[in-house]
Amino acid sequence: MGAAFDILGIGNAMVDVIARADDALLRQLDLTKGSMTLVDTTRAETIYAAMGPGTESSGGSAGNTCAAAASIGARVAFIGLVADDQLGGVFRHDIRAAGVAFDTPAASDGPPTARCLILVTPDAQRTMCTYLGACVNLDESAIAADTVAASRVTYLEGYLFDPPAAQAAFRKAARLAHEAGQLVSLTLSDPFCVDRHRAAFRTLVKEEVDILFANEAEILSLYRVERFEDAVAAVRTETRVAALTRSEKGSVIVTPEHAIEIAVVPTTVVDTTGAGDAYAAGFLAGYTQGRSLAACGRMAAIAASEAISHVGARPQADLRALVAGV
Amino acid sequence: MGAAFDILGIGNAMVDVIARADDALLRQLDLTKGSMTLVDTTRAETIYAAMGPGTESSGGSAGNTCAAAASIGARVAFIGLVADDQLGGVFRHDIRAAGVAFDTPAASDGPPTARCLILVTPDAQRTMCTYLGACVNLDESAIAADTVAASRVTYLEGYLFDPPAAQAAFRKAARLAHEAGQLVSLTLSDPFCVDRHRAAFRTLVKEEVDILFANEAEILSLYRVERFEDAVAAVRTETRVAALTRSEKGSVIVTPEHAIEIAVVPTTVVDTTGAGDAYAAGFLAGYTQGRSLAACGRMAAIAASEAISHVGARPQADLRALVAGV
Repeated sequence: MGAAFDILGIGNAMVDVIARADDALLRQLDLTKGSMTLVDTTRAETIYAAMGPGTESSGGSAGNTCAAAASIGARVAFIGLVADDQLGGVFRHDIRAAGVAFDTPAASDGPPTARCLILVTPDAQRTMCTYLGACVNLDESAIAADTVAASRVTYLEGYLFDPPAAQAAFRKAARLAHEAGQLVSLTLSDPFCVDRHRAAFRTLVKEEVDILFANEAEILSLYRVERFEDAVAAVRTETRVAALTRSEKGSVIVTPEHAIEIAVVPTTVVDTTGAGDAYAAGFLAGYTQGRSLAACGRMAAIAASEAISHVGARPQADLRALVAGV
Repeated sequence: MGAAFDILGIGNAMVDVIARADDALLRQLDLTKGSMTLVDTTRAETIYAAMGPGTESSGGSAGNTCAAAASIGARVAFIGLVADDQLGGVFRHDIRAAGVAFDTPAASDGPPTARCLILVTPDAQRTMCTYLGACVNLDESAIAADTVAASRVTYLEGYLFDPPAAQAAFRKAARLAHEAGQLVSLTLSDPFCVDRHRAAFRTLVKEEVDILFANEAEILSLYRVERFEDAVAAVRTETRVAALTRSEKGSVIVTPEHAIEIAVVPTTVVDTTGAGDAYAAGFLAGYTQGRSLAACGRMAAIAASEAISHVGARPQADLRALVAGV
């Protein structure tokens, strides 16, 4: 139960390519605003060619959470697969520079490092097209058992269910964490991702997940219900803690006995990319410090607010200072 | 004298890696604030490892000028050498997405695409470390004679004098432009760059340059004088137009007969990277539209103001709209 790390994130290691776009471009490319779509090489090239000038920055849902949690002061490690190429080097540099331990060896052959093409519309919504690249080869061999055992919370992104070999890695990590007396956390990532993997997620949530993160659309999709109250009733029978985010309506921390409402921290919304990732970072950083659930929720809301106040998913402010008053 | 392009930029094609830094890191790395230093592979790796999480975006002085001029509405082409690698693909995508014609074939062997490591301190100053990579192999063969002949102004960045083979390319382009009855423009780029190549620059300015861009430190260095007035007196005997920038003191457009003072356009300064590049873009876009020198100067000041109001060198606003009132 001792831990060298507060949080171990396991996720798709990728570099974001962010460009501003208008709604007409989304229609032209037949993209659903606000969603994450998996794309193959050809489609990725078509979309990239149609995009405006971009900026590249390290991303990936769990990677973003790790970087933000480290910025708050948590001790963090990350497992994910990049290729031995320039973008892989960028990913490795950035997550280490954020203070996160990252030692998964790069793939020396196979597809290049994953990219997420992100179109940010004037309403600050992000629409993501993910080319999984090297991530499709993440498998059980990448799960460093000693790191899992030495981490208080092993945090898994739902997107990891898309590359098939990663599902086994995912389950291995959850099993190892519990064998070591540690906790398992999952974010459902995206309502379409839940659609793709509902049965597997349902089993995982019931059997392995101690702390679940989901937004409203994702938790409704998981339980195939239409009312938020029904989703709350369902999830509280299955997990120790569920942190359910509701955009501008704030979030609710649900336990078997309680439901704690957390208000949003107001800001000017520039780009919602990474909001959920930052929320999980704030929550888990607080949780592993032994803070109350209400305090964890406030730290989560502060981190999410910072993430949406600028273009890009990773923190640009000193999150430790921002949450100091909680 | 007909022209398919208003501006042809020739420069080092590179991707910027921008990270926030404090003064202590500059001292630790022995870097001179505000300067551009050439670094080899080993030094680039050392500096990159010491830098915080970064964002990548296409850069290069002339490349930035081309992207900004295209944003204003000028017809623009670019010549520069990237490698056939991921960052080369990023550079090519971004400059084309900005509306710039870019057809220089990528180098299929040799060093990787150039990178500029940019440390932005809290005072908004940028300190640059350039790894020239593939740029060292730009030579005369890259100068597409028909493109030069078809461009009203061929714009050259002084940094191109650093990779040796590029100097010959530089002179070839200037000669071809004048043979076709077109204009040649040069930016001195950096006072240390002027120090490295003063004699060559002096000859070039006197014999080939119609429109010269320089900041105060650069023009003082070129003529080895201490007073701005003395530099003005010298440059007006050698070029048709010199646009001399003086940071917060604005700029002066100098001709043999006149000196026109241009005020700065106030903004909140976030990152000075690309200020001079954007200034040249605004000026040349106006000049090739046949605008008065005063109007060119105002367009230049507006473009520079936009560039320093955000992190990154390339425009993020619609420059055409911003200069519409001039």
